[in-house]
Amino acid sequence: MKSLLLVAHGSRREASNQEVRTITKILQKNNQQQETADFVAIRCAFLELASPSIPEGIDQCIETQTETIIVMPYFLSAGRHVSIDIPEIVAKKQAEYPNKEIILASHLGAIEEIPDLILSSLQSLKL
Amino acid sequence: MKSLLLVAHGSRREASNQEVRTITKILQKNNQQQETADFVAIRCAFLELASPSIPEGIDQCIETQTETIIVMPYFLSAGRHVSIDIPEIVAKKQAEYPNKEIILASHLGAIEEIPDLILSSLQSLKL
Repeated sequence: MKSLLLVAHGSRREASNQEVRTITKILQKNNQQQETADFVAIRCAFLELASPSIPEGIDQCIETQTETIIVMPYFLSAGRHVSIDIPEIVAKKQAEYPNKEIILASHLGAIEEIPDLILSSLQSLKL
Repeated sequence: MKSLLLVAHGSRREASNQEVRTITKILQKNNQQQETADFVAIRCAFLELASPSIPEGIDQCIETQTETIIVMPYFLSAGRHVSIDIPEIVAKKQAEYPNKEIILASHLGAIEEIPDLILSSLQSLKL
């Protein structure tokens, strides 16, 4: 029983935050369409400038009674936010809930298939 | 004959800029490994804080004698940079080179397969 928290930076532009919520809805739908859904719940949260915050998002996941919460940074680059800020927040929450397993996944930009995805997306461009 | 320019924001952290250059190298390698390479040249450029700039990157693509230059924003969100700043820069370069075709592709975050990629990357996490 696991849940997924997609963590974005957050923006003053509400439309940018809305894009993250839309991706989260697509993740929920695609997860449900799998033969066996990987996640009981999928939520999003923001490091700053939008809500819910990461601690609030983790709390929401914990309320779904899942034992494992996977936190995935929706970031392209492993800057300070990905390498320091988000791990610190996750570590605090892990200390708060020692009976849960709160796992920090790699950030989006680290997924190995991204370059192939870029090339294949450009093949479908009509030139 | 086309070339690809991957455009990132640029960062004060040189390691972040280096990540973009690494992705560009992987794109070059994967492109070459295809039966018929899609691109004669693949370069990267930065909106700010790093070099080359986008105009310089487009110039580098034009020097490869390609007729078509595809500019792809390596951004997750369609904020001001993706919706206004980069299109303005591309439009100026298109006016400077009326005999070339400079095409602005969708930004990375708009690729439809991203949610499935996220779910499949998490399936390989050892829990």
